[in-house]
Amino acid sequence: MSSPTDVSAVSAIADGTDERIIIFDTTLRDGEQSPGISLDAREKVEIAEQLARLQVDIIEAGFAAASAGDLDAVKAVAETVGNEDRLDARGEVISTAPVIASLARCVPGDIEAAAKALAPAARSRIHVFISSSEIQMRAMLQASNEQVIASAVAGIEQARAHTDDVEFSPQDATRTEWSFLVELVSAAVEAGATTINIPDTVGYALPHDYGQWMVRLRKEIPSIDAKGVILSVHCHNDLGLAVANSLEAVRNGARQIEVAVNGLGERAGNCSLEEVVMAIRTRQDLLRLDHGVHTPELLRTSRLVSSLTGYSVQKNKAIVGANAFAHESGIHQHGVLQDRLTYEIMRTEDVGVSGSSIVMGKHSGRHAFKQALDQLEMDLTDVEVDVAFAAFKEVADKKGELNLEDVRAIVLDHTGAAARIEGHELASFSCANAPEAKPTATVTIRPAGGGEYVTATATGDGMVDAACTATREALGLTDVKLTVFNVGAVTEGIDALATVTITIEVGGNAFTGRGVATDVVEASARAFLDAINRSERLARGGARRVH
Amino acid sequence: MSSPTDVSAVSAIADGTDERIIIFDTTLRDGEQSPGISLDAREKVEIAEQLARLQVDIIEAGFAAASAGDLDAVKAVAETVGNEDRLDARGEVISTAPVIASLARCVPGDIEAAAKALAPAARSRIHVFISSSEIQMRAMLQASNEQVIASAVAGIEQARAHTDDVEFSPQDATRTEWSFLVELVSAAVEAGATTINIPDTVGYALPHDYGQWMVRLRKEIPSIDAKGVILSVHCHNDLGLAVANSLEAVRNGARQIEVAVNGLGERAGNCSLEEVVMAIRTRQDLLRLDHGVHTPELLRTSRLVSSLTGYSVQKNKAIVGANAFAHESGIHQHGVLQDRLTYEIMRTEDVGVSGSSIVMGKHSGRHAFKQALDQLEMDLTDVEVDVAFAAFKEVADKKGELNLEDVRAIVLDHTGAAARIEGHELASFSCANAPEAKPTATVTIRPAGGGEYVTATATGDGMVDAACTATREALGLTDVKLTVFNVGAVTEGIDALATVTITIEVGGNAFTGRGVATDVVEASARAFLDAINRSERLARGGARRVH
Repeated sequence: MSSPTDVSAVSAIADGTDERIIIFDTTLRDGEQSPGISLDAREKVEIAEQLARLQVDIIEAGFAAASAGDLDAVKAVAETVGNEDRLDARGEVISTAPVIASLARCVPGDIEAAAKALAPAARSRIHVFISSSEIQMRAMLQASNEQVIASAVAGIEQARAHTDDVEFSPQDATRTEWSFLVELVSAAVEAGATTINIPDTVGYALPHDYGQWMVRLRKEIPSIDAKGVILSVHCHNDLGLAVANSLEAVRNGARQIEVAVNGLGERAGNCSLEEVVMAIRTRQDLLRLDHGVHTPELLRTSRLVSSLTGYSVQKNKAIVGANAFAHESGIHQHGVLQDRLTYEIMRTEDVGVSGSSIVMGKHSGRHAFKQALDQLEMDLTDVEVDVAFAAFKEVADKKGELNLEDVRAIVLDHTGAAARIEGHELASFSCANAPEAKPTATVTIRPAGGGEYVTATATGDGMVDAACTATREALGLTDVKLTVFNVGAVTEGIDALATVTITIEVGGNAFTGRGVATDVVEASARAFLDAINRSERLARGGARRVH
Repeated sequence: MSSPTDVSAVSAIADGTDERIIIFDTTLRDGEQSPGISLDAREKVEIAEQLARLQVDIIEAGFAAASAGDLDAVKAVAETVGNEDRLDARGEVISTAPVIASLARCVPGDIEAAAKALAPAARSRIHVFISSSEIQMRAMLQASNEQVIASAVAGIEQARAHTDDVEFSPQDATRTEWSFLVELVSAAVEAGATTINIPDTVGYALPHDYGQWMVRLRKEIPSIDAKGVILSVHCHNDLGLAVANSLEAVRNGARQIEVAVNGLGERAGNCSLEEVVMAIRTRQDLLRLDHGVHTPELLRTSRLVSSLTGYSVQKNKAIVGANAFAHESGIHQHGVLQDRLTYEIMRTEDVGVSGSSIVMGKHSGRHAFKQALDQLEMDLTDVEVDVAFAAFKEVADKKGELNLEDVRAIVLDHTGAAARIEGHELASFSCANAPEAKPTATVTIRPAGGGEYVTATATGDGMVDAACTATREALGLTDVKLTVFNVGAVTEGIDALATVTITIEVGGNAFTGRGVATDVVEASARAFLDAINRSERLARGGARRVH
């Protein structure tokens, strides 16, 4: 492939070897801030395990001070994934356990909470931040430049007392006055920050310009390079430029990219993990950069996150969308049949697209089921295997054949959120829609903590509406509003298991629940009930994101 | 907002005024090549009308030679939207009718088909292309460099005999040997091409490098600027870089961007219209560029395309995703309540996000209904108003209150594809799901062209499965496979109308159908039947995309 000379090539990458970029994943922190996503500790550990399999370098597991539940979740990730090196069959280390990070404002309580949550991890990072743009400082902190610098320095010093690995972010950096940014970052480096992150918090940067910010920061603050401080970027996708901004930054000397699976995150989300790592790998010829991500795990990671968050990926999403490797026009198909490279720049196996076609059925025994779990790399306790196997047999009886993705969906549904077992349970469900009558549904629920079964019948605009109303009435709830309804077919085809995610609003807070069933309406009832269980668990555990 | 000096600023934009970028929309051509999308002439006109309202400069309406149906569709757009200047209330021209374009290979039959289809348009463009990368030339054309140049020149000259506006694309330009690309483009300019498009067909380019291609092309081929030829870019999003590549190109002298609504197109799609136009508008301060797009129509355009294609937009999609302007974390919410600009760089009204809350119900008369159509800017014939009003009354009776978006969904469903009326019709539907029994559905269908009603009952894994099987059996069809199932809530909340899109495979071809109902299972049956009607219409109209 020829290409014109890269006239703006960067001196920082002139030594001939491919420099390694650190991949910092914030799916569990910024990603989880997407409306309606609320992962419990168990689900966070499940995603973190997959991120470790993907071999990202750093996992930001949450914002420990946000609530007791968040602190527990960060701690659970630190205890488990934060201590597990990945070994090959011969016991050799493939990759060391990722660094576990927690976000913290530059206030003492936040930093103590982060330190406490991270204590069990083999390697940990405290990530402190403070707003630095004039507009955010004015609206949110009512603090002067001097006060912001003092808070940042105090926060970094306090964090350094707990760990040698401290990241500092001036929030809204790309809308910060340049001279103040230089002053603040210089002070942060002096105070002991080992990574300086320049977040494009509102997704405002343009690639060519953002790249020059990196060049100028390194030039005007020589201590960054002198002290070996890592320059990091955290880009939001409001203008569709998060991946490009990240690439231009690393082309110009940044050495860490903050990413989220499926580009999740506030508003239009963060830099998409799968896109940026595949761009670096595919265009290594021009960039002379690399990273440690094991890309064949990308698709599996995307699906797990999509399934647990209820955020589906659009078909035309790069890398992990259903169409990313599909060719429609006759001309394209002709070309691809002649030679895949005519229209493809990546190999499907490098992102984990594979045609797994193992078929299981009602005659499959526990052994075959366990083999499937091995293939899916799902580690379950014996009790969980029992629960999941029973659920598998029940679905297999109804549905006949199931493939690996079906098994994954069933297992996730019945073990992924163990707390669900403590909640209300759908004991029986029926519904009907006939001409000249309103759609109707009947649910029977075993209430949380046991007690009498409750049954309710309701009508609605449609059967989903009727099922949700019946569920609400059976539990005697009034303040529950369904806001988002989403159906994703786990596997393709008419015989797919229906996976429904439903977001409800209770007392001003959003909760997303998930349900799997062979029937879409029954799956909806399960999802609605799951969302209710989550809201009640939160009510028991105390409010969250109080500041 | 301060920012470091843009050290790589481009001399081409040094005159102090904002240069105008031409927006060339290919939703109806490359976008329609997404798997399973098959728009008929009526639907293409509907989308083209909205694109005209959005004030894009050029609408590529299709690939006239691909089939008789494609030719008809291009012609229908040329006849209607291609002749309608947009006027304000006083009759003054707001914008002239867009240029209508058709794609054509550099073969005589293709160019004649394009010319014929475009003849009715006030202004038309023929867009000829030929593969220029070594890999595509070898695999698909078996042609030498000389033969490719000769074909291109002949094609451009033939096209120029029909119109003064001819665009030429060397397909897979970014993987083309540089010296050959220069030779081919030089010959194309000499032959009379007025726009030279440099497609990144496989989404391989990196922004900084692609920008330099523009600089070097203009330098090495002085006739581009000397003859006033427009340099254009057409970027695919395989690495998530289509928007950034387009921006870097126009920063370096390109003056046309090819885009698709919602980033539709082959594989991961094309440069997203909404993202690139909002990036240019939002960062006018740095880019010194502008375009003529009326951005408050963006969201409406996105929804119309999503609804007619069945391609939903993920929640965290930039600009038009449901979350693009949502704020989850307490910290962000706090900031936004103080001052929207703390976390927002665009105003919601500039992209058409508005809280339309007009409520209609079963007592709303034809006058109110027509007012709603006016507000939605939907122009219907009297017959269509009759059909849509009857459907509206039926839904309103069941559902009580409807808002503007509900009305839009009903109208689209009952008039958007008029041909549906000629197909099979769902006369009656019922379904049920009870414990200890398989889900079941019964459909009664009035076959296309009249005749005896047919009824069938079937069971399935779920009710959707049962409904599709019953429909298939009622019509005596065997070779129909459901491949994609998608539910989008048109309006938010539990009482939303369910819009289902279903893609089926018949004889190796994909067809997408759409159905709207208050119940999700009934909507599925309607969508399945609509897809069957589309497949049968195609079978009558002759095969498509034969090459």
